[in-house]
Amino acid sequence: MTEKPAMKIDPWALRETELRIGSLAQTETLFALSNGHIGMRGNLDEGEPTGQIGTFLNGVYEIRPLPHAETAYGYPEAGETVVSVPNGKLIRLLVDDELMDSRYGEVLRHERVLDFREGVLRRTMHWRSPTGQEVIVESERMVSLRQRGAAAICYKVTPVNKDMQLVVQSELVANSDEAVGEHYDPNDPRMAAVLDKPLRSEEHFLHEEMAMLIHRTENSGLRVASAMDHEIEGPEDMYIEGESGPDIGRLTVTAKVPAGQSLKVLKYLAYGWSGRRSISSVRAQVRGSLSEARHTGWEGLIAGQKEFLREFWDNADVVVEGDDEMQQAVRFALFHLLQASARGERRAIPAKGLTGSGYDGHAFWDTETFVLPVLSYTWPTAARDALHWRHATLDMARERAQQLNLAGATFPWRTIAGRECSGYWPASTAAFHVSADVSDAVLRYVKATGDEEFNREVGVPILIETARMWQKLGAFDSSGEFRIAGVTGPDEYSAIVDNNVYTNLMAARNLRGAAAVAEQFPEDAAALGLTPEEPDEWRAIADAMHIPYDATQQVHPQADNFTHHELWPFDDMEPTDYPLMLNYPYFDLYRKQVIKQADLVLALFTNGDYFTAEEKRRNFEYYEGVTVRDSSLSACGQGIIAAETGHLDLAWQYLQETALVDLHNLAHNTSDGLHLAASAGTWLGLVCGFGGFRDYYDIPFFAPRLPKNLSRLAFNLRLGESTLRVDVSQTEATYTLPRGSSVEFTHFGEKHIVAEREIITLPIDEIPRPATVHQPKGRAPDEIKTTGTHLDETGALLQVEGDYPHQTGSAV
Amino acid sequence: MTEKPAMKIDPWALRETELRIGSLAQTETLFALSNGHIGMRGNLDEGEPTGQIGTFLNGVYEIRPLPHAETAYGYPEAGETVVSVPNGKLIRLLVDDELMDSRYGEVLRHERVLDFREGVLRRTMHWRSPTGQEVIVESERMVSLRQRGAAAICYKVTPVNKDMQLVVQSELVANSDEAVGEHYDPNDPRMAAVLDKPLRSEEHFLHEEMAMLIHRTENSGLRVASAMDHEIEGPEDMYIEGESGPDIGRLTVTAKVPAGQSLKVLKYLAYGWSGRRSISSVRAQVRGSLSEARHTGWEGLIAGQKEFLREFWDNADVVVEGDDEMQQAVRFALFHLLQASARGERRAIPAKGLTGSGYDGHAFWDTETFVLPVLSYTWPTAARDALHWRHATLDMARERAQQLNLAGATFPWRTIAGRECSGYWPASTAAFHVSADVSDAVLRYVKATGDEEFNREVGVPILIETARMWQKLGAFDSSGEFRIAGVTGPDEYSAIVDNNVYTNLMAARNLRGAAAVAEQFPEDAAALGLTPEEPDEWRAIADAMHIPYDATQQVHPQADNFTHHELWPFDDMEPTDYPLMLNYPYFDLYRKQVIKQADLVLALFTNGDYFTAEEKRRNFEYYEGVTVRDSSLSACGQGIIAAETGHLDLAWQYLQETALVDLHNLAHNTSDGLHLAASAGTWLGLVCGFGGFRDYYDIPFFAPRLPKNLSRLAFNLRLGESTLRVDVSQTEATYTLPRGSSVEFTHFGEKHIVAEREIITLPIDEIPRPATVHQPKGRAPDEIKTTGTHLDETGALLQVEGDYPHQTGSAV
Repeated sequence: MTEKPAMKIDPWALRETELRIGSLAQTETLFALSNGHIGMRGNLDEGEPTGQIGTFLNGVYEIRPLPHAETAYGYPEAGETVVSVPNGKLIRLLVDDELMDSRYGEVLRHERVLDFREGVLRRTMHWRSPTGQEVIVESERMVSLRQRGAAAICYKVTPVNKDMQLVVQSELVANSDEAVGEHYDPNDPRMAAVLDKPLRSEEHFLHEEMAMLIHRTENSGLRVASAMDHEIEGPEDMYIEGESGPDIGRLTVTAKVPAGQSLKVLKYLAYGWSGRRSISSVRAQVRGSLSEARHTGWEGLIAGQKEFLREFWDNADVVVEGDDEMQQAVRFALFHLLQASARGERRAIPAKGLTGSGYDGHAFWDTETFVLPVLSYTWPTAARDALHWRHATLDMARERAQQLNLAGATFPWRTIAGRECSGYWPASTAAFHVSADVSDAVLRYVKATGDEEFNREVGVPILIETARMWQKLGAFDSSGEFRIAGVTGPDEYSAIVDNNVYTNLMAARNLRGAAAVAEQFPEDAAALGLTPEEPDEWRAIADAMHIPYDATQQVHPQADNFTHHELWPFDDMEPTDYPLMLNYPYFDLYRKQVIKQADLVLALFTNGDYFTAEEKRRNFEYYEGVTVRDSSLSACGQGIIAAETGHLDLAWQYLQETALVDLHNLAHNTSDGLHLAASAGTWLGLVCGFGGFRDYYDIPFFAPRLPKNLSRLAFNLRLGESTLRVDVSQTEATYTLPRGSSVEFTHFGEKHIVAEREIITLPIDEIPRPATVHQPKGRAPDEIKTTGTHLDETGALLQVEGDYPHQTGSAV
Repeated sequence: MTEKPAMKIDPWALRETELRIGSLAQTETLFALSNGHIGMRGNLDEGEPTGQIGTFLNGVYEIRPLPHAETAYGYPEAGETVVSVPNGKLIRLLVDDELMDSRYGEVLRHERVLDFREGVLRRTMHWRSPTGQEVIVESERMVSLRQRGAAAICYKVTPVNKDMQLVVQSELVANSDEAVGEHYDPNDPRMAAVLDKPLRSEEHFLHEEMAMLIHRTENSGLRVASAMDHEIEGPEDMYIEGESGPDIGRLTVTAKVPAGQSLKVLKYLAYGWSGRRSISSVRAQVRGSLSEARHTGWEGLIAGQKEFLREFWDNADVVVEGDDEMQQAVRFALFHLLQASARGERRAIPAKGLTGSGYDGHAFWDTETFVLPVLSYTWPTAARDALHWRHATLDMARERAQQLNLAGATFPWRTIAGRECSGYWPASTAAFHVSADVSDAVLRYVKATGDEEFNREVGVPILIETARMWQKLGAFDSSGEFRIAGVTGPDEYSAIVDNNVYTNLMAARNLRGAAAVAEQFPEDAAALGLTPEEPDEWRAIADAMHIPYDATQQVHPQADNFTHHELWPFDDMEPTDYPLMLNYPYFDLYRKQVIKQADLVLALFTNGDYFTAEEKRRNFEYYEGVTVRDSSLSACGQGIIAAETGHLDLAWQYLQETALVDLHNLAHNTSDGLHLAASAGTWLGLVCGFGGFRDYYDIPFFAPRLPKNLSRLAFNLRLGESTLRVDVSQTEATYTLPRGSSVEFTHFGEKHIVAEREIITLPIDEIPRPATVHQPKGRAPDEIKTTGTHLDETGALLQVEGDYPHQTGSAV
């Protein structure tokens, strides 16, 4: 049974005040720790009860066959699926020979706090055993942002009021049966494929308090080493025993602990993997990480973590005044974005980060479209690394293009290592916009950072090869327009359409970007076989790109014919009909006007320079009426355009839906991992929505406007060597430069330059209230009341139970 | 290795003059015997060598899971696949303890003849064993057209020149390992799924020379009984021994046979199955069929067969003068059409009849579109029975419509028992035209026969329920036109398109037909809940049906936007690129102008009343340029319209391609079973192509015109109680009435009435030679030279080795 977790709002932490077993699957995701290389779900130390046990290493996957009832040319025959690596979080406790388990005895107190500034998950538990023994367990867990291969746990148990015989078992367990919790549903396509015992033991050994396991995946052939070491503080006569087996390392500490004294176990963990290196090499690497962690010591690791996060927050923090939960939500989002990407180092940023196995651990286009814009302006090295990963997969993207009778390169819809892993081509292979999204992320990163070395190394090949793909994918028609037929845009309730506006606009930008780098780096372009004609051809295609327009309705159709289709019978729908994809066939969704997620409206944001303000207003109004938001990717874009077109209250509701998707489990599948694109969407909704930030002009553009419930919004943007700070109130915006010498920007279209130590304050005019827009019946965003507990001004707890809105649906 | 079979052309038989092991997979199909209930591939009596062993009972299938890499709402989770029932064809021979096997020793003579007028497969073999013993084996095999559950074999072996110890083993074998021959390719989607030992034994017994096996399929739960009985003639001291086991019945005859004398085994076979009835009931039924067959006796069975076929040929024969192979081919085609349907009795007519396991034994729309028109005019009871089968599946079609958010009923793309068994919805679920094709076959059968009882019982529910589906599937747009979006027409190189012309025209006919029967049979319509408005609504929809037209190019686009798509790069194609679906992804085929099989051109035939002669001419010319005929369903329609538009030589080439697809193994997969739609297409190509017969007007329409190489074409049409005979020469056509009192018809648009004993001879004007049309590079139909052997005027053999044209592709 699913319960709501007991949360207390805190501006700098996620704070749970009570253990609710029915919410574990969700809270394991929310409390997950990661550095982009290692990911650990917030499982209880003692392993059980659990929703889903998970410890992940970015890039470790197994290959599984993709079955097709009817196969055809070009279908991927194998997919990649994330696998859980050995679980080193486990610390079990026996109190007078009774296994500590929160389902038995009595939990007198239980608190978990994930501190966004310290990067530590703290837990305090006061437990009374079935026979009446009371202990206090205090544990702290961290995955190091500094030391990429390391994690650590400080576990302290204290008998209350009497001496007790305690046994603490610290484990490292591979292929555990419980890797899948009770909520697993094999029919839900959003969940991961379950592989039975995916790791084959290659080696295990024990040395004093240190144990190491080496495994290999059967089909993908990836070697994974995991190790633990310990420092133990306790009574002098405690007894310590270690053992190891193919799938287990275990250290058992037995001690008679006097009342009021403690037994403390410091556990250091290290992980590493390689698809190429030998056992001895991988072993040495992980042994090194482990030694380094122990050498750094617990205090050192904690200090390093704090320091890393201080730098991050100095650059990335967003201040929201007027709504405590939104303040918390945006920091929660940024913290997890950092965790997902900080030390990914040329690995993908999966849709769920490393917080769960949902979507098989795959990365999708939403990384480039939603996550990387945030990172480009807050923590650009992480954006750079994620794009280096795409670059590393370019050969696979070239092969795929060749297989598909295209030129250049086409990036996969979903993947871990770079291969296309999708089993349904109309919604994947045909979604060629993925390649434009990758290119757009490259262009944005370079524009934001001025990183020309990256541009030469990564930008040139990605932009040129994708431009070649677009050139081959479309064709000039007899009227001289360039048309791209038979593709799928972002909206998954349409497929295989002609001239999807989002795709065509993004392709045009891709082509122009390619022409520019080809001329900027002629030698590198020549190495890719650039012909002298290509840049001009690409610009000509971009200029001739066909963007359909329905002159009768005076809106842009999402794609050819869209506005001529029958309307979905929205008025006949019941709440249980949503998400529609679980209750209606694709054939019916595709051929009617019903939109799962912003598509044309997303283009109004990403390619806003193409549309007039009036077109945006009309388009937004039209598409609001047919968009059902069965995807968590939708509300963010709708909210941003709602804000731009003056629908500030609606924008706020969409922002809430985005920001609280996991905190409130709005999509009912936070158990599978975070919706990282929605985390990013929280930042985008604030900065691009109410901050009015756009980056498609030559210089940063701002048109800030706050909804009535916010009194202040402040955020920083890293722009090359400068950091621009924007501080917005209801009536004015203040631009300062905490770092750098000067930055040009526009405020409502008017150009300004802010220099060091300068404070530019500019007024915000009121926008005329636009006509009300309407969503399909029952699909208007609900006002989300805060769930959990506020701290009132006196510091006392103020319980506010929230209503959950209707919103369900899948992230991608 | 595939060889060409050694065939000699014979107007009334398929005659093979030599045993070529590399052609066995093909000839087993060509020599298959069937009555529509029982099907036996033309395997050698001794079982091996073989291409594919196969004995089928119409309607016996097993259920298998349909795996989906990514599942979605409405996908079928299970499919049906035909399974081989116990093989009763087996008669093995040991000559002086040496197993007779044509791969060893020497085949001195081998002839097989399938006699179209006698319905018997005769084989003569003169074999010299490795040790030099010579025997002559003469066998005759028949599947009774009269006695539905019965088959029989007369097997005679004669030692040559010396006395020999002979052992003849007559077997009935279930779950044989060799059911799949060497040519099996699990990656070819056109082949059947292979199930391992699909039959579970329930009972087996032996009584004197009779053995019976009862089996049941595991998942579909169908009970199959098979039995054999024998009459044996041979030396008095021969020794006969029987045995039975779960998967085997065997009778062994041992005899010392003097030179010149014979050992003769008459084997009677009976088969039956049921999904509901008890063991004892199924056992009794098959025991009864077996007794009846033995009681009838071999001579009686043969006489009955001849008589049945005499009646068939009296009604159905087509005379072609000027091309011996075409004369043979059309009789071969008609013979197999009869075999596939004669005693189907409310079971499907699968795409391959009962001649092989290709396409999993499924029936498709081509049964209604190609096969049933032929049967409606030649052997209407078979058409009636096949439509009764569709009617019997109506509840499943209703459930499917409900699942798909539609009204009424929608028939499956591929099925055995009535469930949708397709694993790829864009090419199946979306091909809604299937339901219009079924309705069209109903309308045609009723028009041809005047069978109003059938119309009331079957026509009313099928027409009304499919009309309701169309009404829900499409919608009126703001301009008042009715549009049907997101469907797939006959061409499988397009999918999910708006306003496919073929579909919309066929839907309109369906709707009008429904309105007519609703008013003709008001009580039956009322029982289906007909509202008073429905007939008028259906007529209004039919009248408002949107048929797109490209005014610039002055052609009808196959569907919206089709003529705006990029042309397939035909000039870059090599012969090995075809069939394109095996070398290019669907996404690329769908979005370009390339057509697998006639679609708009098929509509020019099936719905020719909609188009002007000039439109037909222009459309045909246009679509010839983009049609690659990667399906054997294509040439027939193209040929008919080629003939209508005056391209008589081209029409002949398309007819050859259709008529010889199996005889020449043009699609390289005759091994999997006959292309029954192409068999039907042979008749259609002659009767509708060169005979110019159309049935979409009130009275039969003829516009006959022969290609230059034919001197005569004569055919009969059964029209209710009458039979109209049309006898066409280069210059005139003669209409007579072998049966009936009078028939109205038009000859080139001019109305005539032919009465009993009247002979109406009318002139044929020469048609102006039209401009040459062009097919894509390398895809023009080849002139097919006759392969095999002609009989010249003196009766001597004239060897003419044929060139095989490029044509490959799938039937459906």
